[in-house]
Amino acid sequence: MASRSQSTRARSPEAKRAREATILDAATRLATANGIRSVTLTDIAAEVGMHKSAMLRYFETREEIFLRLAAAGWAEWSRAVRAQLADAAPGADDADSAEAVSGTGREPRPHTVARLLAESLVARPLFCDLLAHTPMNLERNVSLESVRTFKTIAIAEVTAVGEALRRVTTLSPAQAGNVVATATSMAGALWQMAAPGTELRRLYESDPDLAHAVVDVAPRLTDILGGLLRGYGAGDDSG
Amino acid sequence: MASRSQSTRARSPEAKRAREATILDAATRLATANGIRSVTLTDIAAEVGMHKSAMLRYFETREEIFLRLAAAGWAEWSRAVRAQLADAAPGADDADSAEAVSGTGREPRPHTVARLLAESLVARPLFCDLLAHTPMNLERNVSLESVRTFKTIAIAEVTAVGEALRRVTTLSPAQAGNVVATATSMAGALWQMAAPGTELRRLYESDPDLAHAVVDVAPRLTDILGGLLRGYGAGDDSG
Repeated sequence: MASRSQSTRARSPEAKRAREATILDAATRLATANGIRSVTLTDIAAEVGMHKSAMLRYFETREEIFLRLAAAGWAEWSRAVRAQLADAAPGADDADSAEAVSGTGREPRPHTVARLLAESLVARPLFCDLLAHTPMNLERNVSLESVRTFKTIAIAEVTAVGEALRRVTTLSPAQAGNVVATATSMAGALWQMAAPGTELRRLYESDPDLAHAVVDVAPRLTDILGGLLRGYGAGDDSG
Repeated sequence: MASRSQSTRARSPEAKRAREATILDAATRLATANGIRSVTLTDIAAEVGMHKSAMLRYFETREEIFLRLAAAGWAEWSRAVRAQLADAAPGADDADSAEAVSGTGREPRPHTVARLLAESLVARPLFCDLLAHTPMNLERNVSLESVRTFKTIAIAEVTAVGEALRRVTTLSPAQAGNVVATATSMAGALWQMAAPGTELRRLYESDPDLAHAVVDVAPRLTDILGGLLRGYGAGDDSG
C-alpha cells in the first residue's frame, strides 16, 4: 500500500481529494497523539506512506495541512455548539412560546451558556491546540491564498456562532463576536498553559511553588466567559 | 569590537552578566524590529558580534533568550501598570479618605480600569509578542530549571497586579487573577491576529471579504476587559 501510494499520482479530482483526505487524517492522528508542535512534514509523509516530495503536490507546507485541519475544526465545533445553544434555550421545547425569544428573562443563565461554550472547546483538544497555533504559526508559512480561504471560513463560523448566541441572549453583534473571540482565544491560550500530558505539566504539579501554574481549563474558562456574559448584560445568574 | 567579543571569554560574574545583557539587548532590538518569530540564534550572534558557539555559553537556546526577555517584560509591565492603577483610584489624592478603599462606589469605573490595562499592554508590542510565544514555543525548548525560574517570576507578577486591581475594585483574588490572565492572554492573541506591519495585515485591509479579520487591539481588549470587570461585579459604568 505504501509503495503503491509512492508511485501512483492521483490524477482525477476525486483521487486528488481522496489523497488529501488521507494526508489530513494522518496529520490528525499524529497531532492528536503528540501535539501539533512536534509533527513535521516528514512524520506525516511517513504515516501516509508517501515520499515527502510527492506530498508537496497536495500541500505546500506542514502549516497548510494544519490550517486545513483548523478550518475543518472551526466548521465542526461551530455546528456542534450552535446545536447545543439551540437546545439550551428554555423555549427550545416550546416552539409556541413568544417569551422564549423576547428577552424577558427566559434566556439560559450566563453560567449555563459559559459552561456550554467552555466544555465544547475543552472536549476538542486538537482544536484547542490548532486555535493557539493558527495566528502564531500556521498563517505565517502558507500562501496568501491559503490564508484567505482559511480566514473566510473562520470569519463565517465566528459570525454563525455569534448569531446562535444572540438567539439565546441579549448580546449585540459586536459583543457576541467578542464572546466567541474570547472563548476560542482563551481556550487556545489556557490549553497551552495547561500543557496536559507533558513534562511541563508534571513539573507544575510536582513543585508547590508552581501550584498556580497548574491550569484547569474548563472551570477557568467557564468562570471568565460567565463574567463576560454577565458584564455584557446577558442576564444575571440569580435570575 | 566584534572580534574582541568573539575571542574573549567573560570570566568574572560581572563580566558574564554584562555579556548576557549585551545579548539580551541585541535580541530585543531584532525582535522589536522584525517580530520574535523571525529572529534566530544566528541573527542574535551576528548582531552581538559573537560566534554562535560562544553565545551558547550564556544561553542554551534562542528560546531561553526570549524567555528571559519575557520575564523582564512581566516585571516592567507589572511595575508600570500597578503605578497606573494606584493613580486611577479616586482616593489616590486623598490619603485620609476611608471611602476610597471601602467599596462604596468610589472605585474607578470598570471602563477606566479596562482601558488602563489594555493600553498598558498595547503600548508594549514586544511584550505582547512575547506573551503569545511564551506558552506556545518559549517554554518548550529550554531546561525545566529555566521554565521554573520564568514561571516563578510570572506568577509573582500576576499576583502583584491582581493585588493592585483588588485595591481599586471589589474583585476576589480568583477573579483578579482571571482578569490579569485574560488581559495578558488576549493581548497576545489579538496582537498576533492583528499582525501589524505584515503582509498578512495588508491582505486583510485590502480585501473587503476579510474586513472582520482586521483587529484593532486596544478598543477590542478594552471592551472585553470592561465586560469582564462589570460581570465580576467590579461596579457599573453608570455609577
